[in-house]
Amino acid sequence: MDKVYISGHKNPDTDSICSPLAYQYLKSQIAKDDTEYLAIRQGDINLETAFVLNYFDMEAPLLKTSMKDEKEGENGLILVDHNERNQAIDDIEDAEILEIIDHHRVANVTTKNPIYFRNEPVGCTSTILTKEFNERKIEIPKKIAGLLVSAIISDTLLFRSPTTTDDDRKAVEKLAKIAEIDPETYSLEMFKAGTSIEGKTPVELLNDDVKSFEISGKNVRVAQVFTMDFETVEKLKDDLLLEMEKIRLENKEDSFVLILTDIFEEASRVLVKGDFDEVLANEFGSKIENNEFYAKGLLSRKKQMIPNLTNAINKAN
Amino acid sequence: MDKVYISGHKNPDTDSICSPLAYQYLKSQIAKDDTEYLAIRQGDINLETAFVLNYFDMEAPLLKTSMKDEKEGENGLILVDHNERNQAIDDIEDAEILEIIDHHRVANVTTKNPIYFRNEPVGCTSTILTKEFNERKIEIPKKIAGLLVSAIISDTLLFRSPTTTDDDRKAVEKLAKIAEIDPETYSLEMFKAGTSIEGKTPVELLNDDVKSFEISGKNVRVAQVFTMDFETVEKLKDDLLLEMEKIRLENKEDSFVLILTDIFEEASRVLVKGDFDEVLANEFGSKIENNEFYAKGLLSRKKQMIPNLTNAINKAN
Repeated sequence: MDKVYISGHKNPDTDSICSPLAYQYLKSQIAKDDTEYLAIRQGDINLETAFVLNYFDMEAPLLKTSMKDEKEGENGLILVDHNERNQAIDDIEDAEILEIIDHHRVANVTTKNPIYFRNEPVGCTSTILTKEFNERKIEIPKKIAGLLVSAIISDTLLFRSPTTTDDDRKAVEKLAKIAEIDPETYSLEMFKAGTSIEGKTPVELLNDDVKSFEISGKNVRVAQVFTMDFETVEKLKDDLLLEMEKIRLENKEDSFVLILTDIFEEASRVLVKGDFDEVLANEFGSKIENNEFYAKGLLSRKKQMIPNLTNAINKAN
Repeated sequence: MDKVYISGHKNPDTDSICSPLAYQYLKSQIAKDDTEYLAIRQGDINLETAFVLNYFDMEAPLLKTSMKDEKEGENGLILVDHNERNQAIDDIEDAEILEIIDHHRVANVTTKNPIYFRNEPVGCTSTILTKEFNERKIEIPKKIAGLLVSAIISDTLLFRSPTTTDDDRKAVEKLAKIAEIDPETYSLEMFKAGTSIEGKTPVELLNDDVKSFEISGKNVRVAQVFTMDFETVEKLKDDLLLEMEKIRLENKEDSFVLILTDIFEEASRVLVKGDFDEVLANEFGSKIENNEFYAKGLLSRKKQMIPNLTNAINKAN
């Protein structure tokens, strides 16, 4: 082979950027001929991944989104973090798939020849790659360990996801030492960078994911923003409340509820403008202060906020 | 899981019998709960595999050819040495596939959940299982090493198959020591047992794989038997020649050629009754003696025997 591309899935998350880079390094170390291994990506780098690449001083993979002009027998493709065709690079039919390393369900993969296909039910592709390094007794450089550990922390929400396995925990323990990070501290920084709302206006935040409900004759608007960037929230709070009141009055609604969810803490800060603020806080076992209350365990608008909001309205009426 | 079945493919060869048994042992060693792992098979044990099981004093896996009555969530299935549905146990749709370990092309595998799927382009499934033992640091008992090494020798024809890789060689080297066998000597015995023609009649042997050809106006019958059991051939030789002459006269043919192929030696012994015996032997750079000649490198009737037979007939005419 002349050139072998290593790609993650479309709309790439941190695993789909970091795993190709780490595997590019591993394959280059064990290559027996002069095949060039090249990590590529299928979309823009998100805020979280940008933080990771910057932290460990690494370049993003090349943006290359088609295999149309590649010649079979000369240029091949390795899929990491996906195996389904609709998640893969465009013109995948033109590609010679050489390997697949993944941790998702297996769906309709067909190859002409026997290939190396390693799929394991673990939390992250980078966990499997860490095993590959260990099994082949290849030393993991600090930067590569940094990419791998970031991907595992990202995919497992630092072990909070139900997909987390012992393999993921073991890999993070080992990699964190090499990368010289403290997993807890680093995760906070990474997730905060990944959910930064800096530069966004109150109007943008309030309209990003918003729904209106009619409950027992009352009209309530509920917006939700997932973020850990509470410094920016604090700076924007007065403007947010002003804008919420403006929207509420324009739409002749009884109340505007904004849920600011921190999935890492598994909790939300809730801003309320209009009616039902005290009764709603009460439903969450909390107290309203400066139009805001803290709701431990609140993650879902549909499954948690709406039932509690319904109870609050019924009690206030 | 209550019970997990481990199965090779339909029409099982030595790998599809030995790999389930070896993996049953491995899984039982690493099981964290009281799940029962049970090797099963999808057909009769062939002569070669019977020799292996007898040599290492092992029982054949249970014959179980349907998953119809198994309950999802209670009883699962692990596929080894195959991944395609049409090669798998009947009613595979009723099975919950938990793992796949294979060395063939990947064809249309779809699973509901992420599973452990390990496919490697090596010569034999047992080579991958040997790695599993090594990676998990599980000691391989003598009998299990015997099964594994037999499967690898069988699938790679002791490294003669083009599918052979360094991994297969390394595995055989390690396993042979544990199993206390000499690979060369043991392979000869195993392949001889596997291709035994003891108990077969000359008529059966001459009709098993036979074709008639008309070449330059001459009618020639060419039968082929793959065997390494030359003791039995020697005993049967006079009867074979008598029967060949009888069939030739009955069918008014000019010549009857019987190819006895030893794929391990990559050579054939050829018996000829009728015309062209000397010219044919000559085409193979050999000499006829007692209606027989030795043809080094002769494996294919179509690609090697027929072209040489055509030359021989044309020269004789």
